[in-house]
Amino acid sequence: MSTDGDTASPRGPAVLIVGAGFGGLGCAKELAKHPDVRVTLFDKHNYHQFQPLLYQVATSQLAASDIAIDIRKEFRKSPNVNVKLAEVVAADPVSKTVTLDDGQKVSGDFLVLAGGSQPNFFHTPGVEHAFPLYSLNDAERLRSRILALFEDADRHPELVDRGALNFVIVGAGPTGTETAGALAELIRDVMPSEYHDLAVRRARLLLVDLGHAVLGEFSPRAHEYAARALQRDGVELLLGTAVKEIGPDRAVLSDGTTIPTHCVIWGGGVMAAQLTTPGVGRGRGGRIDVLPDLTVADHPEVYAVGDLANIRGPDGVAYPQLGSVALQSGRWAARNILADIDGKPHTAFHYHDKGIMAMIGRGHAVAEVGEHRHELHGPIAFSAWLGVHVVLLSGVRQRVDAFVSWAWDYFTKTRGPQVLDRSDAARIDWGDEEEGEEAPRPAPVASA
Amino acid sequence: MSTDGDTASPRGPAVLIVGAGFGGLGCAKELAKHPDVRVTLFDKHNYHQFQPLLYQVATSQLAASDIAIDIRKEFRKSPNVNVKLAEVVAADPVSKTVTLDDGQKVSGDFLVLAGGSQPNFFHTPGVEHAFPLYSLNDAERLRSRILALFEDADRHPELVDRGALNFVIVGAGPTGTETAGALAELIRDVMPSEYHDLAVRRARLLLVDLGHAVLGEFSPRAHEYAARALQRDGVELLLGTAVKEIGPDRAVLSDGTTIPTHCVIWGGGVMAAQLTTPGVGRGRGGRIDVLPDLTVADHPEVYAVGDLANIRGPDGVAYPQLGSVALQSGRWAARNILADIDGKPHTAFHYHDKGIMAMIGRGHAVAEVGEHRHELHGPIAFSAWLGVHVVLLSGVRQRVDAFVSWAWDYFTKTRGPQVLDRSDAARIDWGDEEEGEEAPRPAPVASA
Repeated sequence: MSTDGDTASPRGPAVLIVGAGFGGLGCAKELAKHPDVRVTLFDKHNYHQFQPLLYQVATSQLAASDIAIDIRKEFRKSPNVNVKLAEVVAADPVSKTVTLDDGQKVSGDFLVLAGGSQPNFFHTPGVEHAFPLYSLNDAERLRSRILALFEDADRHPELVDRGALNFVIVGAGPTGTETAGALAELIRDVMPSEYHDLAVRRARLLLVDLGHAVLGEFSPRAHEYAARALQRDGVELLLGTAVKEIGPDRAVLSDGTTIPTHCVIWGGGVMAAQLTTPGVGRGRGGRIDVLPDLTVADHPEVYAVGDLANIRGPDGVAYPQLGSVALQSGRWAARNILADIDGKPHTAFHYHDKGIMAMIGRGHAVAEVGEHRHELHGPIAFSAWLGVHVVLLSGVRQRVDAFVSWAWDYFTKTRGPQVLDRSDAARIDWGDEEEGEEAPRPAPVASA
Repeated sequence: MSTDGDTASPRGPAVLIVGAGFGGLGCAKELAKHPDVRVTLFDKHNYHQFQPLLYQVATSQLAASDIAIDIRKEFRKSPNVNVKLAEVVAADPVSKTVTLDDGQKVSGDFLVLAGGSQPNFFHTPGVEHAFPLYSLNDAERLRSRILALFEDADRHPELVDRGALNFVIVGAGPTGTETAGALAELIRDVMPSEYHDLAVRRARLLLVDLGHAVLGEFSPRAHEYAARALQRDGVELLLGTAVKEIGPDRAVLSDGTTIPTHCVIWGGGVMAAQLTTPGVGRGRGGRIDVLPDLTVADHPEVYAVGDLANIRGPDGVAYPQLGSVALQSGRWAARNILADIDGKPHTAFHYHDKGIMAMIGRGHAVAEVGEHRHELHGPIAFSAWLGVHVVLLSGVRQRVDAFVSWAWDYFTKTRGPQVLDRSDAARIDWGDEEEGEEAPRPAPVASA
């Protein structure tokens, strides 16, 4: 590959894009239409993960492949876009050089920093035992843990007394709420028909949030609707409560209660992804401060977009870390780069707010549409949710696959791929207590 | 769960089935129709893997979830079938007791041993570096390795000189031949449009077999057809050649040649899966000897079926280890168990030979249909292959998904889910040589 300034050859301006989430992919697709611009798109994965649907992979509604979009496939017909599987560890705004995980350096004429976010655990002790839900790996890990708990409880029903079927979800934002709704349905509609031996009804689902509302960023009517929908599905709401400590077999709440559980799902908030950027100002959650045109102060050829960027609206308030903000800011950065190349001025980013939505189990959703936040609840919101997500999935094939999965799930009340892998998440340490209850271990057996 | 003889309660006869491959699943489905028979089906995975299509997962044509059938879902409506996720390590034919991996023992009235097969490496030195293709985990591991090799070569083109794009496939039976065909297509039709920077044409594919024919168990015409089809796709055939040693970065052939490669795919043969069965006779490849009614000598309530069993036809020749033999023998064992329960005599297993088929890339296949082995080659055989495999996939949903994938692949000449995971298979040790060529590694970076 091109190293040390090689990309900045006279063939045309070189744009380096760090990260292929909504922001980076949006930017690259916009630039792909201009064959003179040479784009290098870096990501540590060879796929784009459609983050809003991770919880559906974790709850066996969709297969991982349904929401993983092959980045290289997106640019099959764009020879001016080079995809590089590499983690970018540092970006220097002065020399416009990125440093890769193996020490390789690549320079360009423009930099677009779109590294996204990572979970913010707020220094909660024992958080290494929790299951975050921010990447495809996370989702598959969580799915394995959920299935392994049911399997272990099926073989050893006494484990249910020790919390094998207790699930604690931290954070009642969209991630936590959607996960709670989907998990409640899995437990209510699917598991009883699959585990003939197991008292599935003894499963407990707790949604914990320090705030006092479910889906806090939505309207008060939505808070009530979502809370009612979750409670009807058997979710216990613990609002105004924090998780102050997590262990391999428990969650300790701020009111002193200890919940025995081997599955704490973390949907508690995000912070900027790790990326060293010398001399660049950072705001709340480590997000890179940008000017209205999305460039970094004093570096008009260096952009930050999406969750990694601290983008402020005309009212001075930062935009939320949403896929639509990332996608639109990525595209806007591409347009400002093209303006530069054409000798035209940058324009200030304008966010076109299409609204927010969240699904709470089959047939239930809340949506607040457009800048005036027209409210929708119930089946109409659910249909809107379905339509929007089918349209947003980038690959035609992913749309077909995901739509088949949703329709299947909806009409059959079964689920998609409940594949339990052999990862660490599938091996649960039940401690010494269990050993005594079992038959003695047999002598090692040899193959006959 | 029921332990130590508990399953043999007066409620009805208890059948323990070890393994949920074609044999075990076929047997359990037959018994599921009889509510008085209590079935416990053990498998170490919670899914049935459709083995004939593993190579399509390895070459990114299908997603793992397309060929993984959730065992519990198959018995949703059969309360008399209990599925237990457990590895059975031993089976005692006298007490009809199985011992699980955690030492638990379960007894029944009938035992059906259907543990399947595992790769036979014939004591080849260094085989731990090879990629077998007998399980879903194997297929995902191999997919990751193939993709990681292209990614590493894309970042460091000099690695191509060191064999980064050399693939050695051991065994020209159906597994090796179908894998070679699919890999050749992936390299010819898909990779050049996805790696704009990489000299994909420098990839080499070698199919090695000690025998002198491709698809040896087929007819001489099929040997020729398959060999021509593979060679046209750029596969180098090394027949009459063995792989005598495998290293992390090479394969050494019996003629003394060393092929630099980081991907040796092992399709070299199978042997019976590990299972301790005291006092039970074993034949070639460790397969359990059975009488014509599929029971073990002196144990008329203990059956062995599928790849684990040494089943002889009327001519005394053992049946091949094929999915159709496994499925039919599993069903036959169920019928003999039901005959016992009804006080009727066992009948001798009759294999209904529907033929054999293999696909060699898009549009090419060979099939020999029926007991008289009517031969088909080319597009007609391909269509037959497609039809048969769509029908054989057990789940309706898997059929839909796989069919969409095949049609998609066929008409677009792209591929399905090329998801590169972060497993060990994706981390290739390129040795010290590489270090010298790179820029020095940067100092550890902290989050900004």
